[in-house]
Amino acid sequence: VGAPLYNTVRLYEKFPPGVTMGLAYTPLGGVPLFVETVLQQPLDPKSTPKLTRTGHLGEVMNESSSIAYSFSRMYMVKRFLGNRFLDHAVLHTHFPEGAVKKDGPSAGIAMATSLISLALNKPVNPDVCMTGEITLTGKVLQIGGLREKSAAAKAAGSKIIVFPKDNMAEWEDLPEMIREGLTPMPVSWYDEVFDIAFGQVDQAEIESMWS
Amino acid sequence: VGAPLYNTVRLYEKFPPGVTMGLAYTPLGGVPLFVETVLQQPLDPKSTPKLTRTGHLGEVMNESSSIAYSFSRMYMVKRFLGNRFLDHAVLHTHFPEGAVKKDGPSAGIAMATSLISLALNKPVNPDVCMTGEITLTGKVLQIGGLREKSAAAKAAGSKIIVFPKDNMAEWEDLPEMIREGLTPMPVSWYDEVFDIAFGQVDQAEIESMWS
Amino acid sequence: VGAPLYNTVRLYEKFPPGVTMGLAYTPLGGVPLFVETVLQQPLDPKSTPKLTRTGHLGEVMNESSSIAYSFSRMYMVKRFLGNRFLDHAVLHTHFPEGAVKKDGPSAGIAMATSLISLALNKPVNPDVCMTGEITLTGKVLQIGGLREKSAAAKAAGSKIIVFPKDNMAEWEDLPEMIREGLTPMPVSWYDEVFDIAFGQVDQAEIESMWS
Repeated sequence: VGAPLYNTVRLYEKFPPGVTMGLAYTPLGGVPLFVETVLQQPLDPKSTPKLTRTGHLGEVMNESSSIAYSFSRMYMVKRFLGNRFLDHAVLHTHFPEGAVKKDGPSAGIAMATSLISLALNKPVNPDVCMTGEITLTGKVLQIGGLREKSAAAKAAGSKIIVFPKDNMAEWEDLPEMIREGLTPMPVSWYDEVFDIAFGQVDQAEIESMWS
Repeated sequence: VGAPLYNTVRLYEKFPPGVTMGLAYTPLGGVPLFVETVLQQPLDPKSTPKLTRTGHLGEVMNESSSIAYSFSRMYMVKRFLGNRFLDHAVLHTHFPEGAVKKDGPSAGIAMATSLISLALNKPVNPDVCMTGEITLTGKVLQIGGLREKSAAAKAAGSKIIVFPKDNMAEWEDLPEMIREGLTPMPVSWYDEVFDIAFGQVDQAEIESMWS
Repeated sequence: VGAPLYNTVRLYEKFPPGVTMGLAYTPLGGVPLFVETVLQQPLDPKSTPKLTRTGHLGEVMNESSSIAYSFSRMYMVKRFLGNRFLDHAVLHTHFPEGAVKKDGPSAGIAMATSLISLALNKPVNPDVCMTGEITLTGKVLQIGGLREKSAAAKAAGSKIIVFPKDNMAEWEDLPEMIREGLTPMPVSWYDEVFDIAFGQVDQAEIESMWS
């Protein structure tokens, strides 16, 4: 059926802080969708925060990244008030591969996690991949293509798949062949995603990191 | 008739400040239309006020959000002069779900209420949903699809439905089956919406909150 | 012939400062066209003046509002030099209803009057409605649809209709049934519109108001 839409099965073995593994659903099946966020310039307490986005994104995905950004900024304020990273960081989020058009809202939690990972300077558990639309208040909304995304997660070596609780019935209907070896983590709010991605965190260390 | 346009029947059980439940009218019937507004960064008396909007909005709805924003800013000045929240807040309003195209002016009062709720740091009564176009001076104008919107309000568990007084005759023609259990609140001006959404408020507390 | 283009016959009984009643001409007949202008934020002598416009405007009407804005700013300077309102005001002009597409240059004098009304903090005589294209120097140019607009003015309860002097012959040909009860005020320059809208004004009070 022609060239694969994505050339990369698993882009990263170990994730640096700022990288998360999302999942996309294409006409040719599910694929890993990596999110990379980096600082565009050294952190400066006087700089105006900004997020540049690339990766051939459609309108919905572009808006979705704005939502993830606004959400992440207030999430850090509410949970780690002393950490001022996102108040000043000039950031760039990219979705490899640059020539592949991407759209839809389902990378929301992966984008938020990428930003928060960088703010925490803490890598995401590399066994985890995730899919879910996020709202401004951190609610996680249902996504499409769970079957194809689960197959892709498994093919790429993930052990844990995070998806919206509203997709749980769909998960239970998936063939055992796909589900076997994957631990499902249905979530309703971002707080649950955070715990799965980062586990126990040291509050004092995070708050003093970028104060 | 294919997949539902919206997957979510009731996104929130309890509303945080900044969230309101509006109502939309689609070719497939009425649906709840939630409005979420959050601060994009901590309030800073030196920052320039701004409103980012997302949710795949059409031109009319985008303009409608500008009207709600201008209206809300002056409403707060006129009614709660000491509260400077909207003079400085860098805000983001989102309409989940991100992939569903939305348009029309009828979320006007819900958007204004979302902004004012955040400025008051006071949640909207969760029994209330609302539909109505707003003008810059706070007049509430007639909307379409009251029948479908009322059915959706009821299905989503609302007890009180706020709509423009100009739709009152239409309400009276609705079948008893739809009206039963819903208290209609026809309004002509935003002041009436405010009272229904927030009830009694403490003037001194609101004025001193973000001074 | 389907649903009416505008739902509202008479939006305001009393006009707050910043509101004027214009007239529009649609395929279904004449309709009142209200212009609302409000401050978007409290007046601040350090702020840069700006005019936001909404109401689903076509290109010609959008340009017409720029002309009305430039004209009004210089008119205030020439006539009320001490009044610095338009030099600093961050304004928003809206034309309800938001979903109805509007175009054409004939709301020019109504838009200018809306801006000037706000600068004077003085309401327009509510018996007056007006139609006329305006030029940058304040000349009032001929408009179309005087018959339909006059009928709409009358139906909406106006007593005085301001229109361009170049439309006077057309007025005289209107059936007595339409003209009866309406006082025609043909004008060539904006100065005449001002006197009809505001009557006698207190020069010293206006000049000291926003100094």
